[in-house]
Amino acid sequence: MSARPHPRFAIPLLATAALLALLAPWVFAALLSPALVERARTVRDRALVDDTAYQCLRSLTTEVGPRMAGSPGDARAVAWALAKLKALGFQNVRSEPVLVPHWIRGEAKAEIVSPWPQSLIVTALGGSVATPPEGIEAEVVAVRSLDELANTPRERIEGRIVFFTGRMARTKDLAGYRAAVPVRSRGASEAAKLGAVAALIRTVGTSSERLPHTGSTRYDSKAPKIAALALSNPDADMLEREIASGQPVRVHVANSSAWAESTMSANVIGEFPGRKWKNEIVLLGAHLDSWDLGTGAHDDGAGVAIVAAAAKLAAQMKPARTLRVVFYANEENGTSGARAYARTHRAEIDRHVLGMESDLGAYRVLSLSAKVPVERLTLAREIHSALEPMGILWDGNEASGGSDIDTLKGLGMPLMFLQTDAEPYFDLHHGANDTFDQVDPALLRQNVAAYAMIALIAAEVEGGFGRLPKPASSPQP
Amino acid sequence: MSARPHPRFAIPLLATAALLALLAPWVFAALLSPALVERARTVRDRALVDDTAYQCLRSLTTEVGPRMAGSPGDARAVAWALAKLKALGFQNVRSEPVLVPHWIRGEAKAEIVSPWPQSLIVTALGGSVATPPEGIEAEVVAVRSLDELANTPRERIEGRIVFFTGRMARTKDLAGYRAAVPVRSRGASEAAKLGAVAALIRTVGTSSERLPHTGSTRYDSKAPKIAALALSNPDADMLEREIASGQPVRVHVANSSAWAESTMSANVIGEFPGRKWKNEIVLLGAHLDSWDLGTGAHDDGAGVAIVAAAAKLAAQMKPARTLRVVFYANEENGTSGARAYARTHRAEIDRHVLGMESDLGAYRVLSLSAKVPVERLTLAREIHSALEPMGILWDGNEASGGSDIDTLKGLGMPLMFLQTDAEPYFDLHHGANDTFDQVDPALLRQNVAAYAMIALIAAEVEGGFGRLPKPASSPQP
Repeated sequence: MSARPHPRFAIPLLATAALLALLAPWVFAALLSPALVERARTVRDRALVDDTAYQCLRSLTTEVGPRMAGSPGDARAVAWALAKLKALGFQNVRSEPVLVPHWIRGEAKAEIVSPWPQSLIVTALGGSVATPPEGIEAEVVAVRSLDELANTPRERIEGRIVFFTGRMARTKDLAGYRAAVPVRSRGASEAAKLGAVAALIRTVGTSSERLPHTGSTRYDSKAPKIAALALSNPDADMLEREIASGQPVRVHVANSSAWAESTMSANVIGEFPGRKWKNEIVLLGAHLDSWDLGTGAHDDGAGVAIVAAAAKLAAQMKPARTLRVVFYANEENGTSGARAYARTHRAEIDRHVLGMESDLGAYRVLSLSAKVPVERLTLAREIHSALEPMGILWDGNEASGGSDIDTLKGLGMPLMFLQTDAEPYFDLHHGANDTFDQVDPALLRQNVAAYAMIALIAAEVEGGFGRLPKPASSPQP
Repeated sequence: MSARPHPRFAIPLLATAALLALLAPWVFAALLSPALVERARTVRDRALVDDTAYQCLRSLTTEVGPRMAGSPGDARAVAWALAKLKALGFQNVRSEPVLVPHWIRGEAKAEIVSPWPQSLIVTALGGSVATPPEGIEAEVVAVRSLDELANTPRERIEGRIVFFTGRMARTKDLAGYRAAVPVRSRGASEAAKLGAVAALIRTVGTSSERLPHTGSTRYDSKAPKIAALALSNPDADMLEREIASGQPVRVHVANSSAWAESTMSANVIGEFPGRKWKNEIVLLGAHLDSWDLGTGAHDDGAGVAIVAAAAKLAAQMKPARTLRVVFYANEENGTSGARAYARTHRAEIDRHVLGMESDLGAYRVLSLSAKVPVERLTLAREIHSALEPMGILWDGNEASGGSDIDTLKGLGMPLMFLQTDAEPYFDLHHGANDTFDQVDPALLRQNVAAYAMIALIAAEVEGGFGRLPKPASSPQP
């Protein structure tokens, strides 16, 4: 963890202290037995010297590599996952079919034509349509944000390339990313509604390297589809410097990506059946697909490796409930795996006692948050107390769980969430630098230890976590 | 400067202390008058708040960008330099023709074909020949070094792609780079002599980003010419992991670069004529060309900006000798500019009182070294004393000056050398990340201040620095 204090934690801690005072009678009648806490510590100590996750991640990134939904790498990843879970001793290992979109990256190019010719390094956003083969040349109009775009008259935008200049903030939590993503998702369509011919965005990423970050863009059916490309931060700086000259800036962009027919991929599932309550499930999720520029080491090879190793270590303690690992298909380009899982497992959703997903890289775990019914908050706090010696803070009961398991939260499943340090993560997330050499094995082990402790306790504790209310308008998977 | 102590400086300091004791009578009769030292401090203090270099570098990288010898950018850079020196108030601004080689980068691609398909990010080394259009596929044989290659039997190499795995060390001085460069320069030819069909080298650069570093490779006329490509460090790690599987590893490489006819470029020169000894010259050099992957911000746009700003600031003090700035053509691919300068200025070499070149980026200046006749060492030490308050250490009298001015050292010209922190420099040197946003304006100003102080003192001090002995076999320019 950074030496800098993290102000976000101050208020939740105060609020929590007040709440604890109210709940004092419950707190002192501990829900976790000393024996269970001791077994969780044993799992932690084993995890902190265990190499399973690191070797698993080495294998996935080296033997499979990039695995974008629908690609040959995706199919290889499914085969790899089935073999790896069996080799790790999981039972009931199987794949469940998922229809996934199939977008094929081509080559993306951009260059400033005038006033001063310069090459730009760009990458197509996932799902971007192609330009005509000869590309598009047009004057660039810069806007900072979607709001600024909405307040720009159509005649300023029409026939031009819109360049979104806003820079993603580097934050330890997801705040910086959440603020930056709408431009990536909706920027092209919003610009197209005003007549833009292409969209360039400053990369949704915090590194100062010339490696832009991809990620999905979504087209609004009410707007023409225009190509959407991301510029690395230094390239965006260059374009801004040319614009600052006050002269008209013309850019040429070309992109040759294509959409193919949707194709079959799979969720991959493995279990360690419970000793006593086999039908009750503790779900540990991660996504098997990745973007294609790197090898998906942190996103989300690390998650795959972490939850597999954590389940295996927790299972050595023979807990009462079933530990189920789910490697989701296609989180990146539409979460089709998560929706398929919810459909396929509709009948047993109510027996999912707790869900967790690892999808924030193998960086230092900073905090634990939960989303459990208030009457089970004490249990969540006791779990946090067991994790606290690893330097993990408590971050409240308002967790969202990750793209894949949020669907199940909407269907009543309680969840817990381990927040890793998002600062280094968003330097390389969705980019070419997301490779195995960037993973610190010690931090990977810290993640495994935290997930394994929670998994063991959740699979063993009497009474579970209750159910979350289902919103009246709960999403139909 | 890093907080870590730098052991290299310990021994020179001790040796220098001993020498100073011997030279005590000279030391106490200071060669630099307090008035001159005071004027040098005034120049320093002006430099530390002066924006000239930063704006100059912004202009060069934005309005010209990459400027590889012989390219359209190179021609634009010459025009830019002539205009910029005039705008800064230099006199006798002119270009002197230089014939430069003209290599044209194409597209370089590499991928592991088996056992596990993976894309690799590569760049052609400067001067590399092309592969056949369909590329070359062959098994890879890994060697750590030129020595290991020399000890490998021909039958292990013949028909294969040689992969040099040695990793460049990250050092504050040039030691790491000097140890790594021979593989880049000679690796392809040495491999070809043993029958290799292509050469891959682990990038000569210290970053862990997937951006390989280019730089010149040289073909031995006794060997077949084979393509020479650099792999980024993470890509080299990937290839090493596949090789570690023990299975044969096959790679496909393709490169479409080409050599064109040599073409004309130019050295660009500007002066501030001396007040009193106009014919005596203090030379401040940098090179105008750059590699093409980035915009040559640190290498060597920074040098161009630093010496131009330093000469301008020193000239405000109206020193006795002429301050001459030389922007050399084509340092990167054969130092043709340096050799042309030595030929053109043969008649006045003996009137070059001191030379300096800035070609190590705009990082923190760590030390000053010199190469002056021993009887003028005290003067060099007094100049160091004037610079010492900026945190600059003394590093002895064995400086080499930089690629461009070493030719003049061989012809008797004394020189001084400011060593910047080479650790961050070799992360981005010759790579796509060498861009303006990577330059810290405060460190750029520190460089300008140091060069300006030395320039003023050298242009003013009575008696100059004497002449270095010309080696019996001094190079004919």
